[in-house]
Formats: sequence, structure tokens, C-alpha cells
Amino acid sequence: MLLNIDRLQAGMKNAGLDALVATTPENVTYTSGFWAMSQWIRRGPQAYVLIPAKNPDDSSVIANTGMIDLAADSDVWVRDVRRFGKFIVDATPDLKLSGQDQRMQELLDREDDGDAVKSLARAIKDRGLQSAKIGIDEIGILPEYWDALVELLPDAKLTRASGIFRYARAIKTAEEISRLRKSAQIADLSIAAAFDIAREGATEMDLAKVFHCKTIEEGGLPVLGCVGTGPRGAMTNVQPNETKIVKGEVIRFDVGGRYRHYRADIARNAVVGDADAKTVRYHKAICAGMYRAIEMIKPGVRVADVFDAAVETVRREGIAHYQRNHIGHGIGLDGYDAPNIAPSNNESFEEGMVICVETPYYEMGYAGLQAEDTLVVTRDGVDSFMLSNAALRLL
Amino acid sequence: MLLNIDRLQAGMKNAGLDALVATTPENVTYTSGFWAMSQWIRRGPQAYVLIPAKNPDDSSVIANTGMIDLAADSDVWVRDVRRFGKFIVDATPDLKLSGQDQRMQELLDREDDGDAVKSLARAIKDRGLQSAKIGIDEIGILPEYWDALVELLPDAKLTRASGIFRYARAIKTAEEISRLRKSAQIADLSIAAAFDIAREGATEMDLAKVFHCKTIEEGGLPVLGCVGTGPRGAMTNVQPNETKIVKGEVIRFDVGGRYRHYRADIARNAVVGDADAKTVRYHKAICAGMYRAIEMIKPGVRVADVFDAAVETVRREGIAHYQRNHIGHGIGLDGYDAPNIAPSNNESFEEGMVICVETPYYEMGYAGLQAEDTLVVTRDGVDSFMLSNAALRLL
Repeated sequence: MLLNIDRLQAGMKNAGLDALVATTPENVTYTSGFWAMSQWIRRGPQAYVLIPAKNPDDSSVIANTGMIDLAADSDVWVRDVRRFGKFIVDATPDLKLSGQDQRMQELLDREDDGDAVKSLARAIKDRGLQSAKIGIDEIGILPEYWDALVELLPDAKLTRASGIFRYARAIKTAEEISRLRKSAQIADLSIAAAFDIAREGATEMDLAKVFHCKTIEEGGLPVLGCVGTGPRGAMTNVQPNETKIVKGEVIRFDVGGRYRHYRADIARNAVVGDADAKTVRYHKAICAGMYRAIEMIKPGVRVADVFDAAVETVRREGIAHYQRNHIGHGIGLDGYDAPNIAPSNNESFEEGMVICVETPYYEMGYAGLQAEDTLVVTRDGVDSFMLSNAALRLL
Repeated sequence: MLLNIDRLQAGMKNAGLDALVATTPENVTYTSGFWAMSQWIRRGPQAYVLIPAKNPDDSSVIANTGMIDLAADSDVWVRDVRRFGKFIVDATPDLKLSGQDQRMQELLDREDDGDAVKSLARAIKDRGLQSAKIGIDEIGILPEYWDALVELLPDAKLTRASGIFRYARAIKTAEEISRLRKSAQIADLSIAAAFDIAREGATEMDLAKVFHCKTIEEGGLPVLGCVGTGPRGAMTNVQPNETKIVKGEVIRFDVGGRYRHYRADIARNAVVGDADAKTVRYHKAICAGMYRAIEMIKPGVRVADVFDAAVETVRREGIAHYQRNHIGHGIGLDGYDAPNIAPSNNESFEEGMVICVETPYYEMGYAGLQAEDTLVVTRDGVDSFMLSNAALRLL
């Protein structure tokens, strides 16, 4: 299961909540397995999951009838699925349906609740929670629907609760770790495929296309594709264009797709031909910083201490003026899960966190250098997902 | 330019607004050219555009410093870019920066406004709008930021205004039409590439991978990839898996990526080997319905009338029990722009609308059939973007 129910329940308990409502695509998928497609690829479409604190097995999915096939998918572990809105699906007369079709028919046979918020209010009442304290993931619900919910549930106390989902999602389940490992490895293999075709005169776009196609071949889907060469690589979010690779210039990849909805985010650099002395020294320094951070991470270690050690290492090893606002972050259904490895973060690492550790250096006029690995925090250290090391690749 | 400023101003005038604030990824890109990457690929990151009704040339972009390179891109036509948050970018000492780097340095030299909503409030005050009536695109702003804005601007009247952006976006500019045409054609070519490898024993996933890779080769990025064969095709949002193609069964593609941020959404069907009589008759019927709708569309024609004619045609031509909730929709930066071609829609088509016309038929136990074309409404009819016709492809 994707959901870390113990942690979600702990979050509810800390906040004194009787129930939670997921409203963003990542939280809906996280708490039910329901991949509400139109909610993922657009802004506005509504899908919810109601999770009662005491009986999470009595969770409810609220789905648009037009997505009922996805709610009928075997990946969805919440059994109570409610639907809203008109959508026509026929069935061959006199044919006994089976499997997913049978489940779909079951769901279609349920009453149309009218709209998303009416359906949610009905589920809340059915669970006896009409006077409860309910935390709503405030980021995904339309403001007019929040207002409507307040009106439909005059005795309930509704509070904003996106932080509780973020808290729960920080510690991954075994299934999540498995998907994240695969996702990171797809990104790693895809960078290698792109580097394989890098030569003087090839364009950033040539490399990006090979990268994305390899991601697809390996079962992923493209999301993040920052690819830049030479001085363009210093742009944090550089999008590939027809700029040609020049010998000796640094190519920067900061990339990652999705695999079964889980994100990747890793970074590597290469040079066609020989790297100059500055590039060799600077790149060794950022790698040293990243590996120093990785070496330190284990349960109980303060996040801010890892930040400090990474920055100090980069400075000592070759970039004396190195500064950063963070040197990594969690990753999961969202590209930035907790924790943020920042100097102000007094939290500690915990077993089961999946972390991207990165020490990028952007210098306008020169290049972008970036090492970024992904790993899971284990009982006594880390288990890296990477297939390649972060050293500068000379092609 | 992407923005239809006349229409946006008309929308503001109708609503008595002095200014608008874009907050969702599509509206930020639409009103400024700024592709705020992290806002597109995640939920929560904030980017805004303030558009004063009387002086839209005095619009302001509010960008996280971590995305300042994207705000410095030559595609961004709004000149006043404000930034918030700490993010380190170095520059090679004693080197004169040029082009985008110079612009980036200019933007980095501006003051850090602290956070998104402080930056927005400051821009509003700088434009003398602190007591104005301001429409906020309510879908993209975090609720806590809406509250903070109310507090920072006690004399302003803030109202929800996502509908005005939707209203403006319905009539496309020449640049938008050009991108949407290319996006639709990439999808069309990508379906053709997938059909080229379809044979008995190939899997849905084989076809989907070829489809997405072709999209990438042609300069697009994958978004929508519903690919199903046989009875699985009856699932509206069917996601490709290892199901093998069987001779005589219908393959359904309902797909489309993005090209320069603009969406595609088209549908085609194929059969390996011979199609049975039902498939031939039903598919002809859905094509007849779609083409009847396309034939009718021109400025001034009532949307609901086109819906009625399409459904009636499908019924008459072979699927007597055919029902639908809509037979198409606008498309643009969002996959579903106005208008929705539904029986309740009393609006009329207008020149410059880009429309997906579709007549899907989903029958559990049998298959999914779907014809979907994209076109632009011209002065006296339509101009189709399609390279292929919607007839059932026999492979």
C-alpha cells in the first residue's frame, strides 16, 4: 500500500482531528490508490478521499462518473466509492461482465450524488462525522466548494490540513520505496542513454529527446527535463533548445520522470572532450559535498547539520564562495516532499525517508554543475538508488 | 502573443474589475508568456501575474527567485518582473553578461519581496490599485495567501475571477492557433506511428510507447495517453498495460501531448485484420456524427444545436441508443477550454475558438469507439488541424 496509515493517524491525533479529506492529486492517490487522471493533468477537476481517524478502513473515494473506470481499478484499495455527474457508459446486452467491468458496473449502479461537494458531505454524514473536526487538504478543493461544504455541514469544524498529508508522506512504505527506486533508476539509465549520443555539434534538444524516449521505453513518463550546455546550464530550469554542444563545455542534466506516479529527480554532468582545470576542481568539490551529506545521513541526524557539512565540504574542496538555500529534499508522489535539507530545519532524518541530495552550482557566464542522488534512509544509514556515480563524465 | 487582451479587458469590464491576478499555471503563462515550471509540475508553488484593466502594459509578474531564469526568457513579454525568496546564482567575475544572463542579473538585482503574496500586494500598491476591485483567479492561490492578501490590502475588494480567464482564453490568438495546430498534428502523426507497429500479439504498452516517443521526436511532450484494445477500450480513461492485440478487436487511442505548452486531444480507432459488421456500422455512425457536427460549426451557430445534430446523426446512422453528456470542448493551455458542447449550452460558436469535436461510444464487454478531431472556427466555417481522417483504420 502507498499509504502510511500509522503516520497519517498520528498526524490526525496531534491535530485533534476526527477525519481528513484528501483533495490534491497526490493525496488522493496516496490515500486510496485512485489515480484521478483529469485531476492530475488539469487544474479544477475534483476528486476526494475521506479518511476517518478511527476507522480508516471506512474511507470513501469521491469520483467524477467520467473517471469511474479508474476508481474501479484493482490498484484502488478503498472499497466505498461514490460518484457524481452524468456520464454514459453502455454494456453489451445479456453479457455477464467480469473483473474491472463488473466493478465498474457496480459503481455505475450507485446513485449520482450530483456534484463533488454534495457527494463528500453525504459520505461525511454517512460516517456520522457531521459534527466532527475535519481536516481538509486545502490546496485541491475549489474555494466555492469549501464554502459549499461549510454550508452543508453547519455543525462540523473544518480546518486546513495539507500539512498532515505532507507529514505522513515523508516516511515511505515499502511499495513507495520500490516505485521510487525504479523511478530514479529509469532517470539514471535515461541520462546514460543521452550521454551516449553526446558529441560536438549535437544539440541540447537531441539529448533531451533521447533522455525522454529512454524514460518511456523503461516504463516511465517524462516530467522534469532541464538540459543545458555551456553557459546556458547556469540557468536553474534551463529548457533544451537547438544550442549545440561545444567541446570542453559542461552539459547539465537535472531531470526525472514518473514511474507508477512516483517522481524522480537526479542530476549529472558531462563534458565532450577534456574538461578545464576549473571544471575538474569545481565538479570534484560539489561531488564531495553531496557524498559528505550522504555519508552523514541516518536516523536521528539533524537535517541542518547535514546542510552545514555539505556546504562546508564544497567550500573546502574547491568552491570557496559556495552558498545554497537547501541541499536536498524528500521525494515521492510530489517532487518535493518533506524534509527540506535547509539550514533552518531542526528536524532529524527518519528511517523510510526518500531523499534527493544535491549540491548544484550555477555560475552565469560559465556553466551549471550539479550532482544529485536519490536514496532511502535505512535503520543505520542510507541505501542509494543510483546506478551511476556523480563524477563528471568525460565523453 | 498568447494573450487575447481585448477579450480579457472585456471580461474585466463586464465584471466591473480594475485588475486581474492570474494564479494557475495556464493563466500565468497565458497573461505573460512566463512558463513557471514548478507551478506546472507541482501543486502549491506560487507564481502570479497582475493585469491592470486600463494599462495592461503595466502588468507585473511575481516569480520565485528559483525560477527567475524562466522569467528572464525572451518569451516573457511582461517587463515588470518581481521576485521573492532566496536563491543563489553566481556570475563569473569581471565578465560582461549578455542576452538572457544580463536580463537574469537585472532581475536578481531587484529586491527580494519576501514571499509571493507580499510581492503581489506590493505590485498592486505600486500600480495604485490598493483600493480597487481586483479579480483573483481563485484556483491557484493558496487559501492562506488569499487571507494574507485580504489583510495586506484592507481597502481593496477581492473577488473570485477564474471564469474571466476562461472567458478570454476561449478565443485564440494567431500564435495560439499555430501552436494548437502543431500540437494536434503531432498527436495525429504519433497515432499513425503507433498503428504502424500494431499487429496481433503486440501489447497496448508497445503502442503507447511508440506513440509517446513519436510525440517527443516531433517536439512535443506526453500528457494524455489512453490506449486500450478490445473490451478494455470501453474504459473511458484506459491506461495501456500488457494486454495483447487480438485480430478483429478495436484499438482505441484518446491521446495528446503538449507543444510549447499547448494541449492536444484527438482520438482514432484501428483493427488488426477484419472488423466485424457491428464495428463497421457503429464506427461509421460515430464518424458521421462527428463530421455532421464539424460541418455545422461556424460563428453564430448555437452550441446546443450542434450537440443535438451530432447525437441524432449517430443514432440514425447505426447506434440507435446513443447518448452523450457532451460531444466536444475547447482546447488551449488547458485540455478543456470553453465552450463545452453540451445540450444545455446556449452560447454560440465564435471565430477563433479551437474545438475538439468527439463522439465516443463506450460499451463494456465489447469495445470503445471514438472519433475526435480538432479544428479552429473561422469566419465562415472551420479549418481542421487533422492530417488523417477518422475512419476506422484496418491494419
